[in-house]
Amino acid sequence: MPHIKLPEGLPGIRGAMAFRPETARPLNDLVETLLHSPNSLTAGERELIATYVSYLNDCHYCQSIHGAIAAASLNGDEDLVKRVKADFQHAAISDKLKALLVIASKVQKGGKHVTAEDVADARAFGATDLEIHDTVLIAAAFCMFNRYVDGLGTSQPYDEAMYRERGKRVAREGYVTVSKEYLPAEAVLESAAK
Amino acid sequence: MPHIKLPEGLPGIRGAMAFRPETARPLNDLVETLLHSPNSLTAGERELIATYVSYLNDCHYCQSIHGAIAAASLNGDEDLVKRVKADFQHAAISDKLKALLVIASKVQKGGKHVTAEDVADARAFGATDLEIHDTVLIAAAFCMFNRYVDGLGTSQPYDEAMYRERGKRVAREGYVTVSKEYLPAEAVLESAAK
Repeated sequence: MPHIKLPEGLPGIRGAMAFRPETARPLNDLVETLLHSPNSLTAGERELIATYVSYLNDCHYCQSIHGAIAAASLNGDEDLVKRVKADFQHAAISDKLKALLVIASKVQKGGKHVTAEDVADARAFGATDLEIHDTVLIAAAFCMFNRYVDGLGTSQPYDEAMYRERGKRVAREGYVTVSKEYLPAEAVLESAAK
Repeated sequence: MPHIKLPEGLPGIRGAMAFRPETARPLNDLVETLLHSPNSLTAGERELIATYVSYLNDCHYCQSIHGAIAAASLNGDEDLVKRVKADFQHAAISDKLKALLVIASKVQKGGKHVTAEDVADARAFGATDLEIHDTVLIAAAFCMFNRYVDGLGTSQPYDEAMYRERGKRVAREGYVTVSKEYLPAEAVLESAAK
């Protein structure tokens, strides 16, 4: 049971966002920019980083939904997502993404764990400053999202089909669009704030 | 030296935000809503939560600037900020805030550390569901901000006067207003995105 009274029927972060739409809006804007907007890293690569950090933080909801979005962005390759979680160094991903996942795993432990050598390795495989920046911020952001979802004791169903279907929708439509289904319209929110 | 080439003369998160204004905007909106907008928790109380989590994460820039904003919001009481960091259970703060700081310290370790008992304790001292929600999200958000600031190796001056002066400004004007000094205007950002 959630630690506070959250709207029912909305698992994971969705219940928390519906409870507090004023913070949901910047959270959705952040994740839209980091994971869905055009970028030299593909959506699949960025979702794999988010999934891997959520797996390290042991957040069932976040690793399931972002794993499903990653798979949907990777032509449905759910095995690749599992392989990245279990042992990304031997997964069929680029050396650049492996180096970025090393950086992400360091950020998950704490920002000071990232070394100049980790960054030099990523750069040697072609990572740009923007890609390194976004990797650090994606990993840091999921240290927030995972704690938010688990810290409120949100409901986190074990229902692979639900995550798979929703993953396809988010991969296609993005976070901001899909969130409109359970968040009040902007005009309502702004008039409530007055 | 920062791990990537950040604009010079902007310490801590400011350099990272100027490097990537597209993510800076939702990050500033989030912290404005959580720490500066009207709330049943005072700005001083919320900044103390942010400062304490940043101290637990050992982020020099974040604990210094948010400690300074907290002090500015608490009639300049820098000793109280130090006391909260060192031993909040014996600081001159309310029992409710102590219970919320317990929740925040659990979130810093990981969301699953928060127990029903921690939440019941906070509620017994008068904390509302919204205050418990915001405490969890503030603590989670600073697990992101601290990792972002440290993970990029940003410059973090040891200059108490700088933090004190800036803390007064942010306490007075808020995050979004002050960030305009180093972020491009919204119109510039939107046209660059096209």
